[in-house]
Amino acid sequence: MSHSDSTPSTDWPEGFADPAGFDAPFTIAQAVAWGEMDSLGHVNNTVYLRWFENVRFAYFERIGLNALHRQAGQGPILARTTCDFRAPVTFPDEVLISTECTRLGTKSFTLYNRVWSTTQKALVAEGEAIIVLMQYGADAEPRSIAIPQLIRTAIESLDAKVLGLAG
Amino acid sequence: MSHSDSTPSTDWPEGFADPAGFDAPFTIAQAVAWGEMDSLGHVNNTVYLRWFENVRFAYFERIGLNALHRQAGQGPILARTTCDFRAPVTFPDEVLISTECTRLGTKSFTLYNRVWSTTQKALVAEGEAIIVLMQYGADAEPRSIAIPQLIRTAIESLDAKVLGLAG
Amino acid sequence: MSHSDSTPSTDWPEGFADPAGFDAPFTIAQAVAWGEMDSLGHVNNTVYLRWFENVRFAYFERIGLNALHRQAGQGPILARTTCDFRAPVTFPDEVLISTECTRLGTKSFTLYNRVWSTTQKALVAEGEAIIVLMQYGADAEPRSIAIPQLIRTAIESLDAKVLGLAG
Amino acid sequence: MSHSDSTPSTDWPEGFADPAGFDAPFTIAQAVAWGEMDSLGHVNNTVYLRWFENVRFAYFERIGLNALHRQAGQGPILARTTCDFRAPVTFPDEVLISTECTRLGTKSFTLYNRVWSTTQKALVAEGEAIIVLMQYGADAEPRSIAIPQLIRTAIESLDAKVLGLAG
Repeated sequence: MSHSDSTPSTDWPEGFADPAGFDAPFTIAQAVAWGEMDSLGHVNNTVYLRWFENVRFAYFERIGLNALHRQAGQGPILARTTCDFRAPVTFPDEVLISTECTRLGTKSFTLYNRVWSTTQKALVAEGEAIIVLMQYGADAEPRSIAIPQLIRTAIESLDAKVLGLAG
Repeated sequence: MSHSDSTPSTDWPEGFADPAGFDAPFTIAQAVAWGEMDSLGHVNNTVYLRWFENVRFAYFERIGLNALHRQAGQGPILARTTCDFRAPVTFPDEVLISTECTRLGTKSFTLYNRVWSTTQKALVAEGEAIIVLMQYGADAEPRSIAIPQLIRTAIESLDAKVLGLAG
Repeated sequence: MSHSDSTPSTDWPEGFADPAGFDAPFTIAQAVAWGEMDSLGHVNNTVYLRWFENVRFAYFERIGLNALHRQAGQGPILARTTCDFRAPVTFPDEVLISTECTRLGTKSFTLYNRVWSTTQKALVAEGEAIIVLMQYGADAEPRSIAIPQLIRTAIESLDAKVLGLAG
Repeated sequence: MSHSDSTPSTDWPEGFADPAGFDAPFTIAQAVAWGEMDSLGHVNNTVYLRWFENVRFAYFERIGLNALHRQAGQGPILARTTCDFRAPVTFPDEVLISTECTRLGTKSFTLYNRVWSTTQKALVAEGEAIIVLMQYGADAEPRSIAIPQLIRTAIESLDAKVLGLAG
């Protein structure tokens, strides 16, 4: 598969893209761990939030936010999260986890997350995360800041389509 | 303190009650673990969902739902969860976690959860959980069922006030 | 119970002491969470290591190591951990978790941990942790250091008996 | 790479093999999650034990033990675990996790686990796990059993070399 190919692959379910590619929605793949199941024999609800976090920080790597955090102390804080559980997940399985920016505000943005079971071939969960940008520092309380233009441009470029921008 | 006292204690913050008492909202207390903090130095977001789960299963013990699950295979499944993060939490601290039933439907009900930091003397998170009742069994797919009257009565008794019932 | 009483209480199992008291071995109490059970219906093995960590950091609070870490960047790193699982643990239960310093070296020390189920009235796990003291800093790689005298004295005072010192 | 090739690849570090191949030691690859770091900025010690568990259950899939558990209620229980931490691990990274059977007893066996950081190109942890075979059942307490011949043969075949068998 060519990354420069402008036609999205049809091999991936709606709301997901090739984890090894550059198409949106930004997607990662991850094996389900046996120990993530609770005594009902299903993956525990807190693990879905960890999956959302995993794709979120991979997305942050991609848009340069983790680098900005390390270099300038400007980083994310989670303000709100929701999760709708569509179907139980069990070991062994591999899940696709995708995220896309559906709202890009001045000081905060919203990521929409989806989880796909490759065993069930079904959407098993979805939900949103609201992220606020913060200036962290050793000498002062963290305070919210405007999203830096660098980050804004990276998000707009990656998720142009869902944000309604000219892609 | 008398458990039969109909006047709620004024020693507990609004939305919480004595963890050792019988007043609503149903409340538990729990120490924050050092290892629950992530590399931002705050308790990780997934831990809040574990806190919600902890108070939920303590509530299920109280209303008899865990016993029903063990005896008749009728148990809960989580359909949706939300969490609004109001303030970061750090170790060492002790949190109060409360829950109350704010909606009691035919096949599902909604629990509203709050987390209070005793160090910060502040509400640090709140959110809801929607629970569906399921019939589990070895030989068939789980299916949703009506909330048994025994459970319904226990919830109505415990959370009469917030449900708008004659308390 | 008087904390100045030199006679240890006989109300606590061997290897544990009153979590609210000042006798050694240093002990904390903690409720088992439903979500800590895995699909075998037992508390997952990683949770035992979290329990060891919980008592370890409570012990660090007591001997002043967490304060030293915050003030001077001198803190602990875990070099080795072992755990022998004696019996499965299930929800609901409350566990006692104790730790005591059984070896106090120049740059490292060994803590011995025990877990007691109050429901089973039995020792359910035990194991050791080897901790090395490190100088952390923004500008250099962490390096191991000699245990500061302040910390050494606190450990010797708390665990005089097991260390074979005049108590 | 040909799976029938009897010459082990030299592309993998000592103690590890191609995660996609059939050479021993049995190896899986896994991304480090940001949320697995604790407030020291390193992956938390409990995560290493989860990594050991992940490769253990993947190994159990391979030797047929998970299938035996589902079909005949004969499954593993963890009796002891140890971990030596060689170097801190940070996000982002990908770890290789390997396991091999170093002792095959009548009722129990020992797995030796290693973790390799692909970023650091270094062994970051190693340790063992002792597994006992149990007969689980609805009507009786679990009891230890002899390792079934099917499982014994699968282990001997996979780890012939380290067990000193004619490979």
